[in-house]
Amino acid sequence: MKLYIGNKNYSSWSMRSGVLLAAFGIPFEEVKLRFDFTPGSEWSRAISAITPTKRVPVLVEDDGFTVWDTLAITEYIADRHPELPIWPADTQARARARSLCAEMHAGFTRLRNVCPMNIEAFFPDVGARLWAEDEALRADVTRLGAAWCDALKHSGGPFLFGSFSAADAYFAPVAVRLSRFGLPLSETAAAYRDTVLAHPAVEDWIADSLREQDFIVEDEPYRSARA
Amino acid sequence: MKLYIGNKNYSSWSMRSGVLLAAFGIPFEEVKLRFDFTPGSEWSRAISAITPTKRVPVLVEDDGFTVWDTLAITEYIADRHPELPIWPADTQARARARSLCAEMHAGFTRLRNVCPMNIEAFFPDVGARLWAEDEALRADVTRLGAAWCDALKHSGGPFLFGSFSAADAYFAPVAVRLSRFGLPLSETAAAYRDTVLAHPAVEDWIADSLREQDFIVEDEPYRSARA
Repeated sequence: MKLYIGNKNYSSWSMRSGVLLAAFGIPFEEVKLRFDFTPGSEWSRAISAITPTKRVPVLVEDDGFTVWDTLAITEYIADRHPELPIWPADTQARARARSLCAEMHAGFTRLRNVCPMNIEAFFPDVGARLWAEDEALRADVTRLGAAWCDALKHSGGPFLFGSFSAADAYFAPVAVRLSRFGLPLSETAAAYRDTVLAHPAVEDWIADSLREQDFIVEDEPYRSARA
Repeated sequence: MKLYIGNKNYSSWSMRSGVLLAAFGIPFEEVKLRFDFTPGSEWSRAISAITPTKRVPVLVEDDGFTVWDTLAITEYIADRHPELPIWPADTQARARARSLCAEMHAGFTRLRNVCPMNIEAFFPDVGARLWAEDEALRADVTRLGAAWCDALKHSGGPFLFGSFSAADAYFAPVAVRLSRFGLPLSETAAAYRDTVLAHPAVEDWIADSLREQDFIVEDEPYRSARA
């Protein structure tokens, strides 16, 4: 099984699936397609050959069978590995976990737009300015913190639904954004953010990302070059 | 079990869950919260009391347990009703169905933005103009048609995965948009669009929507009043 991903430094969607598979010890071959959004690029050629959606991540089985989109990949892995606690065992907790992931999948658009994932870069000044000026961003972060605290209150932590689940993989890139932009969180939410960032699968992803040396201008609204 | 929905005429996300439940004969109480996006409105008060995301649809169990977002609602219903073919039985077909739904959930943004669902209104002239001018819209519709035809080729039809599944509920509002804006499709894709529109659960939803008499200005980029 291959997982096609983009740059580990920038690709928040790739991170979700990569961290999920690594955290549950599911063997897979990681194939990195480095971002290059210029027309006719090798990236464009390679991704078009794998998926008509032209988006990473994509999971490809040895027989060529393809699953695209992080949510579908998560469900497929859970289907194939019923022995693993990818979703919480309790029906209601599972429904809450899926509600949170689906909310993340289509929502938090302001946070995603103005605070793109960029693991190697720290933007506390940009974060402070955005926090002061941007009501929609504040609303997204406030909702996120409330959602995390509600799940943690139900489960008792340390992860959203007790032990590490797909929901935590889903919020790993968000934990990166919040830390890199220094956005304020309640004590409980900040502790959860740090718990996610300290998970071995997340630490491995971050370490790999720091070895990349690309500068993708489309993902860099706040820098003109690497530091 | 209650399903809170918005206006049937406009709320494409409500339609997905409403059609799914109706198509599989799952008993539920439908609670319509008519859209009114002015601050402090009854809509705003009512939806805030049910869900912090302030979005419909929301499924609420008799004990108050809440599932939000269409994808999570679909999975919850599938979890609760393993005897119903909500997803295809075959693992790979199920993964393809979920990939398509997830792609719809976060994608096709140009189609969703410029061709909002409005069941009672027909905009063939707007559709023709957009089709001529809007490359991103053409790309969305082309991808959609290809995705449908690929699924139909695998399954043999008449629905995307043979018999009616969650994937068809997911594309019901898209079938409405395509028909109301008169957007061009291949013969196979057009036949599928019409098959979805003729499903009894979809027909019932459409009939109900025509009894509504609201004009929601935020959802009406192309009219200043009802016809």
